[in-house]
Amino acid sequence: MVRHFIIDCDTAEDDIMSLFMLLRHKVSVEGVTIVEGNISYQQEVNNALWALEYIGEENVKVYPGSDKPLVKDFRSVEEVHGKGGIGDKIAKPQKLKPENKKALDAIVDIADRYPGELEILAISPLTNLALAYLKDKTLTEKIRKVWVMGGTAWGRGNITPVAEYNIWVDPDAAKIVFNAGFDITMVPWDVIVNYPVDNREWEEIKNMNTKMSKFYVDIYTHYREYSMKNEKIGGTPHPDLITTVVALNHENVVKRSDKHFVDVENCDCLTRGMVVIDYLSIWKKNPNTEVIYEIHKEEFLKLLYDLLKWF
Amino acid sequence: MVRHFIIDCDTAEDDIMSLFMLLRHKVSVEGVTIVEGNISYQQEVNNALWALEYIGEENVKVYPGSDKPLVKDFRSVEEVHGKGGIGDKIAKPQKLKPENKKALDAIVDIADRYPGELEILAISPLTNLALAYLKDKTLTEKIRKVWVMGGTAWGRGNITPVAEYNIWVDPDAAKIVFNAGFDITMVPWDVIVNYPVDNREWEEIKNMNTKMSKFYVDIYTHYREYSMKNEKIGGTPHPDLITTVVALNHENVVKRSDKHFVDVENCDCLTRGMVVIDYLSIWKKNPNTEVIYEIHKEEFLKLLYDLLKWF
Amino acid sequence: MVRHFIIDCDTAEDDIMSLFMLLRHKVSVEGVTIVEGNISYQQEVNNALWALEYIGEENVKVYPGSDKPLVKDFRSVEEVHGKGGIGDKIAKPQKLKPENKKALDAIVDIADRYPGELEILAISPLTNLALAYLKDKTLTEKIRKVWVMGGTAWGRGNITPVAEYNIWVDPDAAKIVFNAGFDITMVPWDVIVNYPVDNREWEEIKNMNTKMSKFYVDIYTHYREYSMKNEKIGGTPHPDLITTVVALNHENVVKRSDKHFVDVENCDCLTRGMVVIDYLSIWKKNPNTEVIYEIHKEEFLKLLYDLLKWF
Amino acid sequence: MVRHFIIDCDTAEDDIMSLFMLLRHKVSVEGVTIVEGNISYQQEVNNALWALEYIGEENVKVYPGSDKPLVKDFRSVEEVHGKGGIGDKIAKPQKLKPENKKALDAIVDIADRYPGELEILAISPLTNLALAYLKDKTLTEKIRKVWVMGGTAWGRGNITPVAEYNIWVDPDAAKIVFNAGFDITMVPWDVIVNYPVDNREWEEIKNMNTKMSKFYVDIYTHYREYSMKNEKIGGTPHPDLITTVVALNHENVVKRSDKHFVDVENCDCLTRGMVVIDYLSIWKKNPNTEVIYEIHKEEFLKLLYDLLKWF
Repeated sequence: MVRHFIIDCDTAEDDIMSLFMLLRHKVSVEGVTIVEGNISYQQEVNNALWALEYIGEENVKVYPGSDKPLVKDFRSVEEVHGKGGIGDKIAKPQKLKPENKKALDAIVDIADRYPGELEILAISPLTNLALAYLKDKTLTEKIRKVWVMGGTAWGRGNITPVAEYNIWVDPDAAKIVFNAGFDITMVPWDVIVNYPVDNREWEEIKNMNTKMSKFYVDIYTHYREYSMKNEKIGGTPHPDLITTVVALNHENVVKRSDKHFVDVENCDCLTRGMVVIDYLSIWKKNPNTEVIYEIHKEEFLKLLYDLLKWF
Repeated sequence: MVRHFIIDCDTAEDDIMSLFMLLRHKVSVEGVTIVEGNISYQQEVNNALWALEYIGEENVKVYPGSDKPLVKDFRSVEEVHGKGGIGDKIAKPQKLKPENKKALDAIVDIADRYPGELEILAISPLTNLALAYLKDKTLTEKIRKVWVMGGTAWGRGNITPVAEYNIWVDPDAAKIVFNAGFDITMVPWDVIVNYPVDNREWEEIKNMNTKMSKFYVDIYTHYREYSMKNEKIGGTPHPDLITTVVALNHENVVKRSDKHFVDVENCDCLTRGMVVIDYLSIWKKNPNTEVIYEIHKEEFLKLLYDLLKWF
Repeated sequence: MVRHFIIDCDTAEDDIMSLFMLLRHKVSVEGVTIVEGNISYQQEVNNALWALEYIGEENVKVYPGSDKPLVKDFRSVEEVHGKGGIGDKIAKPQKLKPENKKALDAIVDIADRYPGELEILAISPLTNLALAYLKDKTLTEKIRKVWVMGGTAWGRGNITPVAEYNIWVDPDAAKIVFNAGFDITMVPWDVIVNYPVDNREWEEIKNMNTKMSKFYVDIYTHYREYSMKNEKIGGTPHPDLITTVVALNHENVVKRSDKHFVDVENCDCLTRGMVVIDYLSIWKKNPNTEVIYEIHKEEFLKLLYDLLKWF
Repeated sequence: MVRHFIIDCDTAEDDIMSLFMLLRHKVSVEGVTIVEGNISYQQEVNNALWALEYIGEENVKVYPGSDKPLVKDFRSVEEVHGKGGIGDKIAKPQKLKPENKKALDAIVDIADRYPGELEILAISPLTNLALAYLKDKTLTEKIRKVWVMGGTAWGRGNITPVAEYNIWVDPDAAKIVFNAGFDITMVPWDVIVNYPVDNREWEEIKNMNTKMSKFYVDIYTHYREYSMKNEKIGGTPHPDLITTVVALNHENVVKRSDKHFVDVENCDCLTRGMVVIDYLSIWKKNPNTEVIYEIHKEEFLKLLYDLLKWF
């Protein structure tokens, strides 16, 4: 049975490859919804359209959504991904345009079209999904699964010492989503840093000499360099793409996970956007999230290499 | 020129009379949107439908909206308005039904229908309006005016010592609305307490013996008794209705007002939901709100009595 | 019976005149304790010593105390009082030195010396008093009275729209003091702004031509100009001095006051340092504070003029 | 050269053994200061006196200090340590009494007596140390070292999902201490849970049959059972005692540590009392804390067994 996905993007390099990974696996991408995040909103929209043109999937629809957090101050991170989100290069779509329909409406309508089947690949701040839920609270019953790239498992963040960027940008939206009742799997930042594409693999990819591998090296170089220098990571991190392969092939990719009640610190304070995992069930609440603790890196690499050798 | 209004209600006695006041003044009521607040959500919807049946305005549409605050914990106040919102009596509409369209969509669509003309009479928590704005940020240009019953001018609240209920319920929504760029007039709680319907006036109304005056006495008795006993007010307060007459007849009703930058405390703390009025321009921000400080009570009473003598 | 006072100062012009007022009334000033506040800490200490030299009361002891708030960030307000706290002139004592004993120890020891008799004139941030209490919690039984200049009655502050400076500087200390169980009378900022020394009175004082009136005009000119220009006050405000005359002659000076439970917002947020007055007893706690709402201005002026004509 | 320590206790079983460990190693214990924490304050004082009587060190002085946090609400944890802190047995000293001098004064005075030499073994909430510092800010220069049992390295707490009890009880005090400028080594809760006394070791200790080993088994049984059942720990945790051996023999005991800037979340929120470790130097502040990540368990056990075989 074909799986139906919406991919919610703040479109930088890793979002683009996540989209391509979905397409490679013949998932039905019902929509790409765009949310505030990594870079300027307009460029995020353009990147999504440009990527769809690149991959030749011009029927996939791009829905513009929220361009800032629900309530809190916003900060994008061009220093991490480059001005263009794929380095400093500014991509422009040739002909594709975004839809007029808003992301929150698209999520609600598509969930109605595939009740019990739709999966959300939420690899960005959760504002769009929170808004869709606030519009229609039956969404929790209609959406099959929410795959979240975000948060930390061990309190080791990136945008602050304890907060991961996606959750930090809109902790109110994240709090809404985690407490709504969705079936959530969360891939934390401080887990994915253990599975970077290291120097040897990076060279391997460079030597593939496919169109896709060249594209990959091109769009990831800025992010790779930033991450290795500033975040002490031993290679290119793939938060979104690892989340995508977890979603696509949970059985083979996930090595260790556990179900916990997860909440979000949404105060305007030192720990803004920290994900709180009740690992001891101190609060005696039902688990709402599967937290991924370990993956099989070789399975991730297998899927990545397959994608890079697509054409 | 006919004025176009949406009235956003958490339908208790004073919301109903506000609706009737609009209708009495031949305002075009484009919709009644319902939001979480005073009593159970379902009863709020039912009260609106019941009131429309009572007044014989069965073409006015009722749009269900948010049934809880964006993020924070919710508390209704049946002790203030009675279980039914009009005392403990539970009203039921005979045939009218709410629309399928959601309040946030109704607000966006109606604003599009009357660009630059629509006025929002926001006499309840601001969740619906915040959501509409979050869906379509051009709303601030399309909506002519937002009339807000809420907040305090002097830090004297009702639900907490410093917070007024409407803003307290959803301080995040209020913060969004006040910072969005709407043209707002705010009627604070600690202003309207100076203009209660006192004992003499209450008796006068009782003696009117119109259908409407009997209806009024009937639905306000619970609220009147609660307010006089618990809030040390010398009669029945009319927060919503005073806001409505300010909206309908600003020129005659408003005695003193001033324009300030107004923000909202949205922390989960002692002062949750407090409205902060920068009366000294300490923050050097442009005024976003006309704060009403005094009204002409006789003008309010004139409009109230006229309504009560309608039929 | 002689009254025993400690005066807790962040020594600017109005603190100095408050000290002089105590001395004029033959109060036994058991100590001047210095706390962070208006200007640089060292200058506050120097101002107290210099003022004592000026008035010839060289046996009064000056105890240095806290030089910053318990936990929060600190900000002094030289723009209000001038660099020297008496305008931009930098006063220096000729021979007096501060004690080695710390303010918190002095408060505890003096309270032990006069159990049930000591009064604290707390016209500055409450850090010293909070620390003394934290050292010895029986202080609430030993200290007869705490007279607090601070907070607002109507949510109209000076350092922020809703917070008064003394409480804002150290809201944690204030929260500790208000919740400790002291017998507190509070003189709010937005009450004292109703009783400025206006243009006519200022001229009258200028024409007194006493040594003291010249001193007064000299040290208040900066503060007067700042307040009239920036705080829309119709003359020189006297927050500390009004609190002092309330303490000295409550019977004649106070026109209207009420007892309430008062708490303090100590979050790091928009409303930091706001005083919350539970005027409706919503929280059902016992009153802990007499809030002054109105004074007899003529009584204040009588005492001020008497002081200015001392010599 | 003899080392001079103050041990700051909320005296339960692990505090007592920490005190004994110091004495076993001929450290000069200059004082035992008592602070609010595990159990009722009075019982904490009694336990310290009782333990000194038991070990025959009747010249060591016990200074009572703070009995609740600086500002926040307090909660003791009798469910963890038993009513008596050594299980439900209520210990009573036969003749020893606490000093009249307060803990904060004792810390200041003893630091003055041994400038540059005094070490604080802070195995409890940090209220006493914060107060001592607030009284005398030169303490940071006079105190050689502060050994803190508290916080988490990986965001895995005990009193809340992300906060460890000692820091959670008084996050304001902890924030003051961590930001003061002390030379701090911190032993986190989620590090020490990796080094419990497991079943085999517990049996070994039971078989020692010394007076001390029996005492140990007696006072730890409640804590051991609670921890294994509720905190999923594979034996008896020794947060205080591990901190003590780190202090006594850092060279041999510590396997891995790192210096970071550490701050404390002191909001009244979900993450109250969480320790924030800036592991990436995102905030570009100088490291203020050595965080212990791993110890050599065998070295800890060697010192524990030696203590248990003392007599």
